[in-house]
Amino acid sequence: MAVEVVYRSSRDLERLFMDKAEADRYDKMLELAEALSEALHKAVPSISEEQLEEIGIFMAKNRDLFAKAFRGPVDVLSELNFDKG
Amino acid sequence: MAVEVVYRSSRDLERLFMDKAEADRYDKMLELAEALSEALHKAVPSISEEQLEEIGIFMAKNRDLFAKAFRGPVDVLSELNFDKG
Repeated sequence: MAVEVVYRSSRDLERLFMDKAEADRYDKMLELAEALSEALHKAVPSISEEQLEEIGIFMAKNRDLFAKAFRGPVDVLSELNFDKG
Repeated sequence: MAVEVVYRSSRDLERLFMDKAEADRYDKMLELAEALSEALHKAVPSISEEQLEEIGIFMAKNRDLFAKAFRGPVDVLSELNFDKG
């Protein structure tokens, strides 16, 4: 038996990481996902909480591609991978 | 009476512009909106057609802010204006 260090994002206490950099990336992804969900909730109030969360996480996981698409040209979105997980 | 030139985007035949540059900007906005709607439809199939269109247009109209948010830091989204129109 031994004590070990694990890392987690304060935005998701369930998920533990052995690697601090990985925990940081996860936290940054969740931060963007939450900000997107919040903005889209205000813009389109009829979207459900669950859909908002899915949209936010999907876009945040693909933030580099979306950053490019928002700057244009938009066809970079054809590189999106829609597999879950 | 006289003949005059008006401009429109092939993505929205209803809306006519007197100014070509304005028509171009509108066309680019719709192009991004459609690409976003399509991507989000694949990612979260339960979102309705109408919601997808609203999300796409909202994000595309605010493309500069979203481009910044995707690059980070995300708090630029606090500058979003949620008034319709």
